[in-house]
Amino acid sequence: MTIPRNRLKTLRALGQKKFREAQGLFVVEGVRVVREAAGADFEIVEALCTEEAASDTEVASLIAALQKRCPVWRVSARELDGIADTRNAQGIIAVLRRKPGVQIPLRTGGESLLVALDAVADPGNAGAIIRTCDWFGADGIVLGRNSVELFNPKVVRSTAGSIFHLPIMDAVDLPPFLTSARTAGYSIIVTDLQGNDDPDALPSLGRSVMVFGNEAWGVSDAVRSLADRRVKIPRFGKAESLNVTVAAGVLLASYRRRGNR
Amino acid sequence: MTIPRNRLKTLRALGQKKFREAQGLFVVEGVRVVREAAGADFEIVEALCTEEAASDTEVASLIAALQKRCPVWRVSARELDGIADTRNAQGIIAVLRRKPGVQIPLRTGGESLLVALDAVADPGNAGAIIRTCDWFGADGIVLGRNSVELFNPKVVRSTAGSIFHLPIMDAVDLPPFLTSARTAGYSIIVTDLQGNDDPDALPSLGRSVMVFGNEAWGVSDAVRSLADRRVKIPRFGKAESLNVTVAAGVLLASYRRRGNR
Repeated sequence: MTIPRNRLKTLRALGQKKFREAQGLFVVEGVRVVREAAGADFEIVEALCTEEAASDTEVASLIAALQKRCPVWRVSARELDGIADTRNAQGIIAVLRRKPGVQIPLRTGGESLLVALDAVADPGNAGAIIRTCDWFGADGIVLGRNSVELFNPKVVRSTAGSIFHLPIMDAVDLPPFLTSARTAGYSIIVTDLQGNDDPDALPSLGRSVMVFGNEAWGVSDAVRSLADRRVKIPRFGKAESLNVTVAAGVLLASYRRRGNR
Repeated sequence: MTIPRNRLKTLRALGQKKFREAQGLFVVEGVRVVREAAGADFEIVEALCTEEAASDTEVASLIAALQKRCPVWRVSARELDGIADTRNAQGIIAVLRRKPGVQIPLRTGGESLLVALDAVADPGNAGAIIRTCDWFGADGIVLGRNSVELFNPKVVRSTAGSIFHLPIMDAVDLPPFLTSARTAGYSIIVTDLQGNDDPDALPSLGRSVMVFGNEAWGVSDAVRSLADRRVKIPRFGKAESLNVTVAAGVLLASYRRRGNR
């Protein structure tokens, strides 16, 4: 089917945050992630693909599956590039509807590992942290409202499909959330270059929220004041700091390692 | 001093790999990294700064120090942006001469931790891995010749100054290098989604080369065939893979943790 010109224009506008929010939509790109989207609990509004991509057997079977539930528009490579975030969309993208009001229930017993991002600004970092949380089996992610927006195309792309695998709350006011979590019995663990706690001495069972802060100045004072533990990953060399995504990986790996012993 | 027009043109050309290589130069950006460069064992060919940046006390003292050893050109913000990789250069950049023939000596006894990158393609990943190696005190880094080039501006920027902290060999033919390292008694440890070794069961003392592979297909067959250990970081969730930079952080942290117990 040929896409109506005004629809194409609407989809191009999804590159801008205010239009993404107004329309409640987001875009995913590439064969693997579009296939994940098709299997996820999200409404697919439409898909777009190029003639060239559709000639591939794998893409053709994906398109056949998508056609049962939404329009699949045939577009030129140039039209697709105008909507996709990268030139690596492999000729196929899907437009999904956001789920309003995602909630991550706080447990009052048992085990629960949540991750919160406090003013993480770089979309590549936010997406890679979501992917890392998914690898290490976190139960949910909370993006503070001063962090980059979840549906920023580069965040979505950097999650490599993990956006479909675990509940993610967006634009949350973190201090009240963390206060509620503490009241429910969660330990609040923040990473902090001025911290004194060793990651390997953290509680690994029970309920925790791990908080990662801004790339330049770490967690905010309001969040730090709620911390039960302030962790610094031991340094052996000369680097002034560690990339926030790497810090998240190291802490989550350490947490899981101890939980399994 | 006002920069000659033809010099400005030459420096703009450093954005292209072939000119960077022909001239043997590279560019670093921002107050902190330029200051690190000034304290590092590299020849500073020249520095450029804007009038606005020079009015800052901190930058002014840096410029005063630089002027004792190289020309410091005053340029417009637009001229600077034409050479810098980002808009975040804070009004100051320095042009450095590459060191030819960096060698990382293989030790025949004692402890040594080297990291090698086999076809790591993304400059942000390569730079962040260098920064991570610096944090965890690796003794040197070897970039395989199919990896992104060390002096790519985004690699340099992503190292956040760590490029000055440890020896880095660029464009190395990895299989012969790894063969020499094995002969010298190093263990070759590769990360591999099909691997069976647990990172926490690796040797942590002695001499090792940890190898990280391409973002999409991992290490090459030639490198895998030289591996003593093939490590997979345990997975607890649904993500198909872990970002290579995160994998490097997790393995280096695990290695150092065990070495210190």
